[in-house]
Amino acid sequence: MDDEYKIGAYSVEGKVDYEDTIKKFGIGLIDDALKARIKKDAGEVHFMIERGIYFAQRDMNWLLDKYEKGDKFYVYTGIAPSGSMTIAHLLPFIMAQWLQEKFDADVLVQIPDEEKFLAKRDPKLSLERAHELAYEDALDIAALGFKQSKTKIFLNTEYATVLYKQAVRVSKYLTFSIVKDAFGFGNDTNVGTLFYTSMQAVPAFLKSVQEGRNIPCVIPLGLDQDVHFRVARNAIDKLGYYKPAIMHSKFLPSLKGGPKMSSSDPDNTIYLNDSPEAVARKVNKAITGQQSTAELQKKLGGDPDKCAVCQYNRYLFEPDDKKLKEIFDGERKGTLLAGEHKKDLANKINKFLEGHRKNKERLRGSLDSFMLQ
Amino acid sequence: MDDEYKIGAYSVEGKVDYEDTIKKFGIGLIDDALKARIKKDAGEVHFMIERGIYFAQRDMNWLLDKYEKGDKFYVYTGIAPSGSMTIAHLLPFIMAQWLQEKFDADVLVQIPDEEKFLAKRDPKLSLERAHELAYEDALDIAALGFKQSKTKIFLNTEYATVLYKQAVRVSKYLTFSIVKDAFGFGNDTNVGTLFYTSMQAVPAFLKSVQEGRNIPCVIPLGLDQDVHFRVARNAIDKLGYYKPAIMHSKFLPSLKGGPKMSSSDPDNTIYLNDSPEAVARKVNKAITGQQSTAELQKKLGGDPDKCAVCQYNRYLFEPDDKKLKEIFDGERKGTLLAGEHKKDLANKINKFLEGHRKNKERLRGSLDSFMLQ
Repeated sequence: MDDEYKIGAYSVEGKVDYEDTIKKFGIGLIDDALKARIKKDAGEVHFMIERGIYFAQRDMNWLLDKYEKGDKFYVYTGIAPSGSMTIAHLLPFIMAQWLQEKFDADVLVQIPDEEKFLAKRDPKLSLERAHELAYEDALDIAALGFKQSKTKIFLNTEYATVLYKQAVRVSKYLTFSIVKDAFGFGNDTNVGTLFYTSMQAVPAFLKSVQEGRNIPCVIPLGLDQDVHFRVARNAIDKLGYYKPAIMHSKFLPSLKGGPKMSSSDPDNTIYLNDSPEAVARKVNKAITGQQSTAELQKKLGGDPDKCAVCQYNRYLFEPDDKKLKEIFDGERKGTLLAGEHKKDLANKINKFLEGHRKNKERLRGSLDSFMLQ
Repeated sequence: MDDEYKIGAYSVEGKVDYEDTIKKFGIGLIDDALKARIKKDAGEVHFMIERGIYFAQRDMNWLLDKYEKGDKFYVYTGIAPSGSMTIAHLLPFIMAQWLQEKFDADVLVQIPDEEKFLAKRDPKLSLERAHELAYEDALDIAALGFKQSKTKIFLNTEYATVLYKQAVRVSKYLTFSIVKDAFGFGNDTNVGTLFYTSMQAVPAFLKSVQEGRNIPCVIPLGLDQDVHFRVARNAIDKLGYYKPAIMHSKFLPSLKGGPKMSSSDPDNTIYLNDSPEAVARKVNKAITGQQSTAELQKKLGGDPDKCAVCQYNRYLFEPDDKKLKEIFDGERKGTLLAGEHKKDLANKINKFLEGHRKNKERLRGSLDSFMLQ
């Protein structure tokens, strides 16, 4: 372990040691054998899996055992609204959408509009504001290409009659000790936050409740969200339902080189509602792995691992492996200079955001068809 | 203080010292001035108030200030289902019904079907069973004579979309410390129970939320339930709503002379669904304040304060003060013997239960008109 680091559900600090985390959390790798199995079942393997962005898992072999025997799974993911969605928030939804397409999976999206309201001291995030943001998030999510007939999105405060009843059953197995140890909560933590993890657990077995038979579930999530299911999987098992499988992604780095893009640092975060100018400006200030001058860069070359621009291509914006290799090689050999490197990324992001805006406007009138109430 | 005693939301132990409790809880008495004021506003004063069964209060003068200025209040009360309702459970509902009649008040009844499921270790009380019991409780309550047009009953698991959203707002002000100190919770308390008091708080301001203006509320309750509002009133105030007024009743003693009839002691508890024979049998075993033989009783007389039969007349079954005095005098002077004393009470209880059963059957098909979902 290089440095001290901490992965909490409500904050990530320090340089994350992913190998160390796997041991600590008791989770498995997505290794070559699993990649091959996914490829066999899906017909292809998503670049985020191939590149190790989705790098860890729980019970994925069990999930594919079930799938191969004809027992289809559904996908559960979500986002807690606190402001406009960022490109970092895309990771679970892109994976969910891919799983839907390749495995013909239903998708259930939880938008816990109470979570950040409860967790943040910020009095500006009222529950009403969180509710508005939740609807904007729902539209952002729907616009990512989910099949309307197989995708349901809900807000916790609107779907609570379904959720609370099941959350109560989960909560009976979660003591203060358990959530305190798992989340680092203290005596000053409010009881809404203490209870909340029960609400986040419910969609992982809700389809089994509703259909009266056990249905496998997989949750693509950022590594920081694993903690909710570390505590809830045990409770779900005790209730007699399948524990959900999980796919864990690494964190999209900050533009400035930090371990995780954070929506609370606007200058180093690209929001889905950023203007083309804002994107160009932010990307232009991004850290690269390059030398201090163009001359030195041409002579010595740079380091793609330290370059946010390379990493954003790798994580999200360059699905083509050959083109990604050209970018990494250019950075490494010094043939790709910072200016054009950044301009290329900004263009790719803006092209994506432009299409996304169009999709949103097209769906704005028909979002209700995605929503559960 | 005579003995050690403890009044908790989930258990009452020892001989309750009511005067001491008032000081500890920081609540006021229902004194003669307040009784006179209630009489002036209501046209009469309920015998339970007159006799000091409803003996304590919070903010009742404030409530009547509002009322006298034309600002009508609503009544909130409830019951947590765990088995058939007992005659002890009647106290808050009889008061709520009287307040409805005399003050033209709307009544909101919460049936928290999750509370005992969460609090009890008894695995036999499933959430499904609690839900069934809740509907039986709802019917028992409706049958007590509430006006259908001014009375709404709901189960927490069915009305959670309305309740949870508001409970979340309350819960932000309730830390683990606060509920731990108030309820005696520990590290092994489940997070559903920790959160639950937020759900119990909501109906105390829900009408204000729904109507978009502050509406006074009064809660008739047993003294053991005050703790929920000791913690919640502060949160409700911070949210900008009126703190609810409260009327506190003493506990109906056990038939055997304990401080509180408890539904977990079936032989000493009269349930609303008890048969006439069961009532006669249980009352026949009740403690009286009489001497050990009829001869001694005639000679020395008894003590009505120690006599469960006298107390049941006083609390519930003899509204007529003159007749109650005759019973107490008879006990005291030794002219009323145990056998006829008990037979008279059993007859009164059975007469009440017979009418109640008829009311229930009459309402069974139309309970939905009382229910909120």
